[in-house]
Amino acid sequence: MGRQESDFDALFKPRNIAVVGASNTFGKIGGATLAAVLSGEFRGEIYPVNPYENEVLGLKTYPNISSIPGDIDLVVLTVPANTALEVLRECERKGVKACIMITAGFKEVGGEGEKMQNEVSEIGRRSGMKIVGPNCMGVYSASGNLIAIMSPVNPNKGNIAMVSQSGTLGMVLMDSISRTGAGFTKFVSSGNEAVLKLEDYLDYYSSDLEARVVVAFIEGVRDGKRFRDIARELSRKKPFIAIKAGKTKAGSEAAHSHTSSIAGSIQVFRSVAKQTGIILAENSDELVDYATAFAKCPLPEGRRVGILSGAGGWAVLSADACEEYGLQVPPLPANVVDKISELAPSYWSRRNPIDLVSSLDINLFKLCGEILFEEDVVDTLLYAYIAYDFSSSFDPLSKISIFSEEEIETFKKGSRWFMRTLAESASSVSEKYGKPVLFVTRDSEVYNVLRNSRVPVFGSPIRAVKCIAKMVEYQEYLERIMKAENK
Amino acid sequence: MGRQESDFDALFKPRNIAVVGASNTFGKIGGATLAAVLSGEFRGEIYPVNPYENEVLGLKTYPNISSIPGDIDLVVLTVPANTALEVLRECERKGVKACIMITAGFKEVGGEGEKMQNEVSEIGRRSGMKIVGPNCMGVYSASGNLIAIMSPVNPNKGNIAMVSQSGTLGMVLMDSISRTGAGFTKFVSSGNEAVLKLEDYLDYYSSDLEARVVVAFIEGVRDGKRFRDIARELSRKKPFIAIKAGKTKAGSEAAHSHTSSIAGSIQVFRSVAKQTGIILAENSDELVDYATAFAKCPLPEGRRVGILSGAGGWAVLSADACEEYGLQVPPLPANVVDKISELAPSYWSRRNPIDLVSSLDINLFKLCGEILFEEDVVDTLLYAYIAYDFSSSFDPLSKISIFSEEEIETFKKGSRWFMRTLAESASSVSEKYGKPVLFVTRDSEVYNVLRNSRVPVFGSPIRAVKCIAKMVEYQEYLERIMKAENK
Repeated sequence: MGRQESDFDALFKPRNIAVVGASNTFGKIGGATLAAVLSGEFRGEIYPVNPYENEVLGLKTYPNISSIPGDIDLVVLTVPANTALEVLRECERKGVKACIMITAGFKEVGGEGEKMQNEVSEIGRRSGMKIVGPNCMGVYSASGNLIAIMSPVNPNKGNIAMVSQSGTLGMVLMDSISRTGAGFTKFVSSGNEAVLKLEDYLDYYSSDLEARVVVAFIEGVRDGKRFRDIARELSRKKPFIAIKAGKTKAGSEAAHSHTSSIAGSIQVFRSVAKQTGIILAENSDELVDYATAFAKCPLPEGRRVGILSGAGGWAVLSADACEEYGLQVPPLPANVVDKISELAPSYWSRRNPIDLVSSLDINLFKLCGEILFEEDVVDTLLYAYIAYDFSSSFDPLSKISIFSEEEIETFKKGSRWFMRTLAESASSVSEKYGKPVLFVTRDSEVYNVLRNSRVPVFGSPIRAVKCIAKMVEYQEYLERIMKAENK
Repeated sequence: MGRQESDFDALFKPRNIAVVGASNTFGKIGGATLAAVLSGEFRGEIYPVNPYENEVLGLKTYPNISSIPGDIDLVVLTVPANTALEVLRECERKGVKACIMITAGFKEVGGEGEKMQNEVSEIGRRSGMKIVGPNCMGVYSASGNLIAIMSPVNPNKGNIAMVSQSGTLGMVLMDSISRTGAGFTKFVSSGNEAVLKLEDYLDYYSSDLEARVVVAFIEGVRDGKRFRDIARELSRKKPFIAIKAGKTKAGSEAAHSHTSSIAGSIQVFRSVAKQTGIILAENSDELVDYATAFAKCPLPEGRRVGILSGAGGWAVLSADACEEYGLQVPPLPANVVDKISELAPSYWSRRNPIDLVSSLDINLFKLCGEILFEEDVVDTLLYAYIAYDFSSSFDPLSKISIFSEEEIETFKKGSRWFMRTLAESASSVSEKYGKPVLFVTRDSEVYNVLRNSRVPVFGSPIRAVKCIAKMVEYQEYLERIMKAENK
């Protein structure tokens, strides 16, 4: 491990943390941040810093950084800008290794704030301290048991490392991705980037073995050449998914007033993305979907998709989406048609998409899935079984009480059992063949069953199909550069 | 009212209904369908028909159609194809006015089924009976208190009239749209269209005063010229939102095997849509979003959008999306900047998007919204306040119990109160000015508050902005044809 990586350890796996501005009041940023640190079940020493308290949230409290005994790995600053700068100087003198400046009121407010930020940059340069922010939401690290974030948050643990140049948006995206069952190893809200830049985090994630998928919310890139080099290196090793905000004139003006970043042209960004293998999300929905799919699925080996459906309409929309996004819906070989026909109702579609027309035979669905992989007909399997969520559909029926509660309950349980078993069989097919399987449904039972599986779930065919297309694109990118490197 | 419209009354507002195949077993189609009819609290006579029962679900039961005394408006057929055809002949003799053939096994299975369907068409032609299906899910009519559908369903009442050439998909879409708070006046699953075609329902909806927005899921159009004429007439009167499935080779082949429809080229369909003002949805998510927005919002008078945000990142993404979709994010006049500055924190964005940077001042948000309409700066207002859903964010905190439940509860209540009040103020601004207001958030409280308002809620900026763009496009279409007609 190089020097740089061990330096970042003070940020992502600190042995101890001081929270400056720690408070007993949850409504204050210093209170919420210390609470977040505690809620992460951090295993090292925690030092609240507050000159007016002897004890905060049950912990011995220090009047300042200097009075804390021994070395400090990480300091979190939540006090107002003026004070924060003074404490940062103290941190430099004390030899603190890393600092998260949640405090706002720096370059983004101009004038005096900008001058103060210049001093933050200077301290970072001079001391080598890893400084995050200022004007950020904080840092999360799963293996560090670290939630140094100013707002209540409950991310899943997992294999995604993320950096976001927008704090709140980063939190929303982390929350949305966590709800799909995908999870995070690290998250940084990079704020004004007085010292550590987007590029630095990406560079670190590139060699971080815990990060299997990297996600970035980008408003502006400060060093285009360095970004390109890091992106290229990163994409060679793991999927790098990015969204570029401030794509348009209206957007980039808004971005400038947000974190004073330099937006840069989207045309340039697009071309860099293409050259370096960046998986570009055009909007926040795509970012959530791509992150989920790449975090959960193995990469497909080719463009061929098998669609497995119980209702014609969904099969049609799924096939449309595949072809629109450059994927293939290959025909079924005669032996596959014969094998399925042995078990399927006579009126099944006899082609791909396989429409089993309301069949409730779970074994048949499973056979269809397995045979498509077994006979190497497809590279990816898409279950398009968008049952609607029955949860409230029975309300009118219950109201008039013509069937007994038991009878309706039996029927509901039957539907739930079917969807649950279908979901489980999708997951087992994915595990058995190590190939990507995606599920399209509105049924909440399926979401629950597949939450911790390798099968991502989407509410509509288009969202699933866009993910498959991006995975295929990335796989082809990898093959292309591998070929070029082996020449 | 013309003859045709009064004919459709037998379908959408029948005075009585016979359900053939009615059963005491909920798991059977005839049982579920009769249950659905009862759950809709249908106000006329209901005649279960079943030769083996004297009573079904507590209702006097008839052995056949002929034995039912008096005229019958609507018959619903759930028995197997052979029997269904026999009963249909009986219906013709009895002079039944309308019939919903849920029964499958006709043209979609080929051979004998195709022959039987030809006879259905012939009976329809000869008798003038309004025949829906066969191979369909059924019909819903709010003002008819009619749920003649084979599957449990709980649509909202409202102003949307829908026809779907895919049954299950139609049900899922109706369910999804209902969950947004928009609602339905009528829904038809048109099935194989042996008699009544897509075009017939659209023609009826065109002059139906209860239908304010028309939605169609289209796999194939049978009479291109007639479709074009009806679409043109329809769009002149009300928004006509359509999705065309089977756009691609893969999709149209799947569609053919689904309901044996003739898919037709998407290029032709796109050009027809453009000529006739059809609002074309490219996928099922767009269909749900457009239906919701058009059903709830007044149309915008122009392309100018005001973005109101509490977090920079969302403002940037929203501005990007607006410009990408041809909308304007106009600058704020000096007097508007001054007025907002009187109340806003000094570091507010001073431009559109208006970013109030974590301000919790509800009155300030309201003032900003009102002033943008009052001073005629924008035509549409977009609240981009995507707070994430706090519901599970506090779980880690509760686990370590450092704050009292009361303290955390107070904080949660505070967040809920803020989002609820912000949502209410968005709705009041919309009501006050009669102009479109849309809300972007992930906060479930906002969804609840705005469910029955004129303010649609979306989970991401791109989804809201696409709706605004479509509404502007339609408004401009109306202006264009009005101008042409007045020449």
